Amino acid sequence: MAAPYAHMIQSATVLRKSNLYLSRYDCGKYNGKRGRPHVAFASIQQSERNISIDPKVESLLDSVKWDSKGLAVAIAQNVDTGAILMQGFANRDALAATISSRKATFYSRSRSTLWTKGETSNNFINVLDVFLDCDRDSIIYLGKPDGPTCHTGSETCYYTSVFDLLKEQEAKGSRLALTSLYALESTISQREAELAEGETGKPSWTKRLLLDHNLLCSKIREEADELCQTLENNEDKSRAASEMADLLYHAMVLQAIKGVKVEDVLEVIRKRFSQSGIEEKRSRASKKSEEH
Amino acid sequence: MAAPYAHMIQSATVLRKSNLYLSRYDCGKYNGKRGRPHVAFASIQQSERNISIDPKVESLLDSVKWDSKGLAVAIAQNVDTGAILMQGFANRDALAATISSRKATFYSRSRSTLWTKGETSNNFINVLDVFLDCDRDSIIYLGKPDGPTCHTGSETCYYTSVFDLLKEQEAKGSRLALTSLYALESTISQREAELAEGETGKPSWTKRLLLDHNLLCSKIREEADELCQTLENNEDKSRAASEMADLLYHAMVLQAIKGVKVEDVLEVIRKRFSQSGIEEKRSRASKKSEEH
Repeated sequence: MAAPYAHMIQSATVLRKSNLYLSRYDCGKYNGKRGRPHVAFASIQQSERNISIDPKVESLLDSVKWDSKGLAVAIAQNVDTGAILMQGFANRDALAATISSRKATFYSRSRSTLWTKGETSNNFINVLDVFLDCDRDSIIYLGKPDGPTCHTGSETCYYTSVFDLLKEQEAKGSRLALTSLYALESTISQREAELAEGETGKPSWTKRLLLDHNLLCSKIREEADELCQTLENNEDKSRAASEMADLLYHAMVLQAIKGVKVEDVLEVIRKRFSQSGIEEKRSRASKKSEEH
Repeated sequence: MAAPYAHMIQSATVLRKSNLYLSRYDCGKYNGKRGRPHVAFASIQQSERNISIDPKVESLLDSVKWDSKGLAVAIAQNVDTGAILMQGFANRDALAATISSRKATFYSRSRSTLWTKGETSNNFINVLDVFLDCDRDSIIYLGKPDGPTCHTGSETCYYTSVFDLLKEQEAKGSRLALTSLYALESTISQREAELAEGETGKPSWTKRLLLDHNLLCSKIREEADELCQTLENNEDKSRAASEMADLLYHAMVLQAIKGVKVEDVLEVIRKRFSQSGIEEKRSRASKKSEEH
């Protein structure tokens, strides 16, 4: 049974959106390179206003199990890639601001202020949906980042592998927390980079595909055909998964050559289909005019 | 600038792995259906042992910026799909236990004990890598879940959309926080379900593909060909992304017919390529004996 939580009683004030862009912090930290530390000045400029909040939003804010400090964990996730971009904390005002502005907004515990990711870097996280967990004390901001999220310039804040540290591989450089599809994309990029560096020796299969476009295209057509055969010849499920993996891998090598990221493709898919997973966009702006 | 953190000084004890399976909680909550609440009994059984921790692990644990309660946020993420499964908190012992057991382990703030996700449900999260954020106060457990993570039986704990709540759509049922690829997969499943229910009316394109396997296979071959042409005819990048999206969508309809999930395909990919994104498995157990 979850511990009972006392809901915080807070004033129904949120900073207007225009006031969310003032401080000189980003990723929760001051980045000296990006602007002068005019926090004191900025705070003088801030004018909180009592603005009316939709009673539905109030009710929703009441349903969150804020902790004893009025906070809940807020995780920003890339809607296309699934990458966890950063994690901060939200209070009522931060969640209300995120809902109304659709920009991921957090509460800074060290500065006791709201801050919107991107307010200094312009790399906002454009929130498409917000999810609460079963316990209602943890929040996902599902969104599309305008650029790298981390103040270091890294795509996400999670680029330090514990197992690399334990193997003392830190010197080899940071490694993002990549899920399977993006780990493969990264491998293909690595092979491209090795080729660009003029590496010699027996080339790997990926390198052969990168170098020989005829071979690559014949493999993509062959893999597509083999995937179809799993349906046509009633082959088993594991065979279909294996053929799909083959097709995806070869097609991703072509993508890499064309400079297309998996994220670009998934953005196309998201824009064709709505986020809900239920409604499909009826007006698909492509060569195919038929409905999905 | 990040606020300075006092590192917690804690004893170098961790529960042995066998002791992590005792309590009757899961997903941070008691689930009455799954076992008797023998927490008191279980705690009597627990015998903490001073066991030696590798000095490297100690040093790593020292480098984490534990908060004033000795905790850091710990987020469990599915290594294949990128889905955020659950979020809890870790202390030194929980992180040490996760590193040694490779099972996602948390610290329960309400019960003041370690708990391993899966200890009651057997749905462990098998951790393949652990990441720290730039600030070293937030942790990702990147792993493969044995089954649904949430105590409700849901795949993840995040199935409550704030925007659905605001639209009063809660009655329509829960909706997981799905990233683009899985939202598409969900849409295709929905179309299959509608067909199974014998829905009439003009079928959507997805339904036509689901019903007509010849049409589907001819489209997959056509889309693969069109993707290849973007390389062969030097078409632009956006065209390549669009053709890849078309190929992926049609191939995913075939996958659905075969009962294959995107996650299954990504697991195949993960097992062919190592998680590091740098090393590739040299012994690929497939029909293609060539190296990647």
